[in-house]
Amino acid sequence: MDTLSPKTADYDALRRKLTALLGEKGVVGDAQTLAPFLKEQRGRYEGHTPFMIRPADTQEVSRAVALCAEAGVPLVPQGGNTGLVAGAVPFEQDGALLINLGRMNRVRNVDPTDYSITVEAGCILQSVQQAAEAADRLFPLSLGAEGSCQIGGNLSTNAGGIHVLRYGNTRDLVLGLEVVLADGRIWEGLSALRKDNTGYDLKHLFVGAEGTLGIITAATLKLFPRPRETAVAFIAVTSPEAAVELLARSRAASGDRVAAFELIPRIGLDFALRHVSGIEDPLGEAHDWYVLTELASGQADGSLRDVLENLLATACEDGLVIDAALAANERQAAAFWRIREGLVEGQKFEGGSIKHDVSVPVSKVPLFLERALALVKEMVPGIRPVSFGHLGDGNIHFNLSQPEGADKADYLARWDEVNHAVHSLVVELDGSISAEHGIGHMKVTENAHFKSPLEIEMMQRVKAALDPQNLMNPGKVVPR
Amino acid sequence: MDTLSPKTADYDALRRKLTALLGEKGVVGDAQTLAPFLKEQRGRYEGHTPFMIRPADTQEVSRAVALCAEAGVPLVPQGGNTGLVAGAVPFEQDGALLINLGRMNRVRNVDPTDYSITVEAGCILQSVQQAAEAADRLFPLSLGAEGSCQIGGNLSTNAGGIHVLRYGNTRDLVLGLEVVLADGRIWEGLSALRKDNTGYDLKHLFVGAEGTLGIITAATLKLFPRPRETAVAFIAVTSPEAAVELLARSRAASGDRVAAFELIPRIGLDFALRHVSGIEDPLGEAHDWYVLTELASGQADGSLRDVLENLLATACEDGLVIDAALAANERQAAAFWRIREGLVEGQKFEGGSIKHDVSVPVSKVPLFLERALALVKEMVPGIRPVSFGHLGDGNIHFNLSQPEGADKADYLARWDEVNHAVHSLVVELDGSISAEHGIGHMKVTENAHFKSPLEIEMMQRVKAALDPQNLMNPGKVVPR
Repeated sequence: MDTLSPKTADYDALRRKLTALLGEKGVVGDAQTLAPFLKEQRGRYEGHTPFMIRPADTQEVSRAVALCAEAGVPLVPQGGNTGLVAGAVPFEQDGALLINLGRMNRVRNVDPTDYSITVEAGCILQSVQQAAEAADRLFPLSLGAEGSCQIGGNLSTNAGGIHVLRYGNTRDLVLGLEVVLADGRIWEGLSALRKDNTGYDLKHLFVGAEGTLGIITAATLKLFPRPRETAVAFIAVTSPEAAVELLARSRAASGDRVAAFELIPRIGLDFALRHVSGIEDPLGEAHDWYVLTELASGQADGSLRDVLENLLATACEDGLVIDAALAANERQAAAFWRIREGLVEGQKFEGGSIKHDVSVPVSKVPLFLERALALVKEMVPGIRPVSFGHLGDGNIHFNLSQPEGADKADYLARWDEVNHAVHSLVVELDGSISAEHGIGHMKVTENAHFKSPLEIEMMQRVKAALDPQNLMNPGKVVPR
Repeated sequence: MDTLSPKTADYDALRRKLTALLGEKGVVGDAQTLAPFLKEQRGRYEGHTPFMIRPADTQEVSRAVALCAEAGVPLVPQGGNTGLVAGAVPFEQDGALLINLGRMNRVRNVDPTDYSITVEAGCILQSVQQAAEAADRLFPLSLGAEGSCQIGGNLSTNAGGIHVLRYGNTRDLVLGLEVVLADGRIWEGLSALRKDNTGYDLKHLFVGAEGTLGIITAATLKLFPRPRETAVAFIAVTSPEAAVELLARSRAASGDRVAAFELIPRIGLDFALRHVSGIEDPLGEAHDWYVLTELASGQADGSLRDVLENLLATACEDGLVIDAALAANERQAAAFWRIREGLVEGQKFEGGSIKHDVSVPVSKVPLFLERALALVKEMVPGIRPVSFGHLGDGNIHFNLSQPEGADKADYLARWDEVNHAVHSLVVELDGSISAEHGIGHMKVTENAHFKSPLEIEMMQRVKAALDPQNLMNPGKVVPR
């Protein structure tokens, strides 16, 4: 097996075999068609591949992988290509084929009694949500890219989103997986069981492994009762500390029915107002910090609004809250959420943005913000931080827009330097340098710097055990 | 390394080194003292060990494991020794030392703001519950053995219990682990973060691995808001189908606040009444099937009782429920729960019991019961099945008391034969042959029979990657 490598592989022969297996529809070599599949979302890297394959079902994935393994050619699996760490594009040195699962988009089964749904990896997240809704159930995974990201990618990256506080990460929503392993064999791990202690829990290896241990082809996921009532509020808080206290009060007062709790800085709202149509400031005056929160209950008895109103009234008296707007109906609630989406969109029009996806224990978020803001302002005078995110989980997207008028390229050239300084602070506060987005290509070196050597070694051992030829998304997540 | 093995190991030298390391308190060789640690709960196997070690802290565990690895001597980790599959006793052929973690019982930290608690592996589960309660939080793991089982064992076996329906298994309650690996190195994986996507999720390998991949020495666990109100009812249902329908209605009507939903057969109540003091039948007449359910809410507004009353009234009209008693206060609620505990206790006085710990998808529980009961009654005329358990998760403890007057030893001699027949049915219904208890020693062969060879191979690869010398609880879980 040592003689097999991308350098010696016969790509022409492999392509002929794959075309025979998958048909013309299943193999894409045209540069123009390939181009969008090779672009990664941050625009910082360019992918390369001899050609892309698009299997129609699990059997085709299995046989295609077996052919590639035989030829010693690696594969890079891709879903919706909405990832943010360049994990789903192949790099030139690897000679890897791109394997896109977008054609595998069937909902195989919905079981409302068992509260489970089985879907193929290429299902768009929104489609999974809709299939659940059609069965009067909720699939709670919800993130910005849901209109185009695919569930296979969500699983591979253990996507988070806005509802983690209430329902957990993608990892917490998985009952079973179907995975094609590095040699093409299919691990049939689909199961709707809540309790099964018959050996190692292998599914959790593949969730969050970003395609480096095998290719997820289908999954059985948990469903929940649909919320019958929600209460949404856009709240001006006095400080991040006040926001953390408000969160604790919200969890206690609502019987732990807080579904989302997002921190929004004034500058984020300004960017949204400036660049995105249909956005309005829900409050009369400008404030420094806001919280967007959603409570959700399975009972429609009007009690949630009362809970929220009382909570906010008390918080106002206690000096945590300055002003608040409660959504009177779904339209208003949607308008509040558009602000949260708008601040992400708006940053694109404000020049270069150096991004972070960090988490610290919730109680340390205020300290993190205080120290990190001071740190980056000293490194880059005039920098415009947009610190927003899932406060409920301690996950802040600490995104730094360039100083007005600065040279964009010069600013972005400092990305790694700024990242490293912020990451050092995060690690000092017992946090994570990649809360949601994963490691991909972008954070491999940084992660190896901060992780213990023992933990890196353990990952390498697991990788070697399941993918001895290093054919599965080589160079991603685990240092070579 | 190949020359190292229990046959050639120098136990005397090892014992001297371990005594020097751990002190006299830390090494137990006296047969009488050792005896209870070598008994497993089912009374079917007898453990053997040259001696037992009892480290005081993680550093001692680390150094002790390193010494054993050096000597080629395997280890069997043990907590409260309440396991039900002989997973925590060493067998003579392995020459393994028993390593008991009972001295490591500190609660290291409680963080109410972050909703997390960090404990050492030797903490008794009840102590963890109490430490959480003292901080006005809930640690929801709750099972029959909680007065003596240790959290390390709960983690190693991914214990289930009565609250899985609402809060998940032990696996769902873990934020981070500290583990001593097979060579003695310490993996410092303790973390209170809810979101951390910086590599493979290694903790999930160790949870449920029953000590075969490393020794869990501490864990950071999730806490929840304490329920402010509970409503408990003991309900006579018309059939298992009716129970499943009632469960679905309960989840929907209560806004998914069902904390427990237990199935109890008449015979179980009879056994409890007959053999356990302080048990009363809450209802006037005898019925065939009962459900014991508990709703729990974070708000104390009296609404839960109303929900439960309305739910039961409608279910009665619809022919699902025959009669019901709602607990008027905590004393009554506790009395209802004593029935559930009593039926387990009571079986011990009714002769031999052939036990199963199976799960099927919730919707298939009635079908499983129908077919399994017919099956075992044909195999053993006069058999007295006690089918009880966590209906909410599809987990039935299908325990079969011997026919009255039968010879106990003859009956128990059929254990494997009956198990195998029931397990075949369970697997046919897409179920698990070990829902809660794990594989240990008792179910290794049976599990290998029903699992796909590929899955067994994957487990063996992972085992080889993390414990190449097979020193960690050899012969358990994974076939040799």
